[in-house]
Amino acid sequence: MSRWEEKVQTILNQIGPLDEAAMAAAQARLDRLTKPPGSLGQLEAYAVRLAGIAGTVQARFPKKAVVVMAADHGVVEEGVSAYPAEVTPQMVRNFLTGGAAINALARLAGADVVCVDVGVAVDIDHPALVRKKVRYGTANFTKGPAMTRAEALEALCVGIEVAEELADRGYRLLATGEMGIGNTTSAAALLAAFTGDDPADCVGRGTGVNAAALARKAEAVRRALAVNRPDPHDPVDVLHKVGGLEIAALAGLMLGAAARRVPVVVDGFPASSAALVACRLAPRVKDYLFPSHQSAERGHRRLLALLGLAPPLHVDMRLGEGTGAVLAFHLLEAACRIRDEMATFADAGVSGPVVAEEAAQP
Amino acid sequence: MSRWEEKVQTILNQIGPLDEAAMAAAQARLDRLTKPPGSLGQLEAYAVRLAGIAGTVQARFPKKAVVVMAADHGVVEEGVSAYPAEVTPQMVRNFLTGGAAINALARLAGADVVCVDVGVAVDIDHPALVRKKVRYGTANFTKGPAMTRAEALEALCVGIEVAEELADRGYRLLATGEMGIGNTTSAAALLAAFTGDDPADCVGRGTGVNAAALARKAEAVRRALAVNRPDPHDPVDVLHKVGGLEIAALAGLMLGAAARRVPVVVDGFPASSAALVACRLAPRVKDYLFPSHQSAERGHRRLLALLGLAPPLHVDMRLGEGTGAVLAFHLLEAACRIRDEMATFADAGVSGPVVAEEAAQP
Repeated sequence: MSRWEEKVQTILNQIGPLDEAAMAAAQARLDRLTKPPGSLGQLEAYAVRLAGIAGTVQARFPKKAVVVMAADHGVVEEGVSAYPAEVTPQMVRNFLTGGAAINALARLAGADVVCVDVGVAVDIDHPALVRKKVRYGTANFTKGPAMTRAEALEALCVGIEVAEELADRGYRLLATGEMGIGNTTSAAALLAAFTGDDPADCVGRGTGVNAAALARKAEAVRRALAVNRPDPHDPVDVLHKVGGLEIAALAGLMLGAAARRVPVVVDGFPASSAALVACRLAPRVKDYLFPSHQSAERGHRRLLALLGLAPPLHVDMRLGEGTGAVLAFHLLEAACRIRDEMATFADAGVSGPVVAEEAAQP
Repeated sequence: MSRWEEKVQTILNQIGPLDEAAMAAAQARLDRLTKPPGSLGQLEAYAVRLAGIAGTVQARFPKKAVVVMAADHGVVEEGVSAYPAEVTPQMVRNFLTGGAAINALARLAGADVVCVDVGVAVDIDHPALVRKKVRYGTANFTKGPAMTRAEALEALCVGIEVAEELADRGYRLLATGEMGIGNTTSAAALLAAFTGDDPADCVGRGTGVNAAALARKAEAVRRALAVNRPDPHDPVDVLHKVGGLEIAALAGLMLGAAARRVPVVVDGFPASSAALVACRLAPRVKDYLFPSHQSAERGHRRLLALLGLAPPLHVDMRLGEGTGAVLAFHLLEAACRIRDEMATFADAGVSGPVVAEEAAQP
């Protein structure tokens, strides 16, 4: 077993179950508050699960971050993206200087943007960049594996390490962001590889390709599967053959966060494909993941259903970077405020239901 | 024409169209920012419409409020609610002392809670309460009109006045809240009256009634329509016969806000029934309304479709008070941050699409 494989295995073993007692205590608290039981819907469910993750009713997020994993994709050679690959490093610089959408939304959320180079095709020099490059972009996976199995494991470990470092620095809520021109093609290939779905049903317009490029995306995924024959029962096999470095790192981030009992909000299509990889490696990871938005990207709906995540935000976003995930931080904050700030029926002198049996059965 | 009728008519005439030039300028600004065009979905649409409302690209919300209109409903006699009518004033006191869900969520949103007694069945003494009681609750509308036509017009004017007062005090964003045990039955009756839909398809479980009470709600709506025969072509006729005082006041709030070019975020089922009344009185009001959440309440989906509003939040909430609307303030704030804080392609030195024709056609 390689060093990276050992590290991943160690982390998988560290992911524990939710704390049932804390969840029961959170539910009991919510049921005493001045509102019909369950009437705050998902906000209540979030508060309960956050308690199960933190091991205490009073889960809080003094520090939160969106981790933007950046990498390039050899498959862009196939004409699958509306934007040239040089946009990946350009946008990384934009993240580092604070001008991207994710920066604006992270500031609104009170979250830090942590940008990690896990595989950008060029070197980027900036003091705020977290430099953990595994290789200079993936290979074109229509012609062979995107990366070696060892590189996929190393990229998973990059994510694990970033999660551990952030947990050590006091971050208690993470969002998954990504930047990588071509990565919706990789996400579609992962979806197709794990499910056997028709590639044409897995691809979407990404940053905004036309019908011809959409057809090229489907064809690229089809060839990737034919050439590489990924084994759907071996998540790392799928990941190294048709995945991306940033997707692997995000899967690792989720594993590392779950091992440290830090909740992770999952962004759009590429991030959800990473969540699928993480959940195939360790099904328990799912308990630590929160959905954010239903993107406009085809395939995302399918991925969310596979993950059992019902996204709270339906705003037709398709930008990536973690924008949807950071927007959803607000809902987790709202869940905490509800839990902490509402009066109980007893405190407020508010009457309960007329007769107990009038309450709807769930 | 009565004084109230004149006031309503004056306001209807003051509701102007959106500012097309400001909207075009906002769209042009958004299209220069470092993201694929339209990739922030509804956030971009919100930014454009906010510009059209404010008459400037830089619409801002230095002050925002959720207006909780409170009133009682005679129809509770029919056993349509899980909670006794005394909960209406109890919850009003809870709003005024800051212990309700809407208070917690308004604090998170940086919004003020403005609570208005437009028809609670008892008197409430609290310095922060806005006292504009039209009558002590509606009559049981299964036996006759809920209120007189004059009272419905007066309640509309209460909402208009509150909107005007808040606009004068610098509020630039409002949310609709309501408190009124029994008001989902009134909302269902309004929906059925305007659409001719089967009452059984319009009612829902509200705060959580069981199957027997749900059947009583449908029956109450059926009798209300049979006894009162509201004219769907005369919104005030429908409103006074099967509406509620807080619903009328919320409709007025929307009219008054639109006349002052203040956007309004619409909460759940009762608030959306008020939006339908407002839009039937003045179709242009719709341009000033923003959706918030898809509630768990049956009938709400139908109302939103009638209004042409696609709710961004899908969190299974069914509490009312304005909780969903205040939660959605965050999305309008996000739209403004995006507009104001992102770098342009030129500023950030980021490349555009490979070839123009690769961009997806809308």
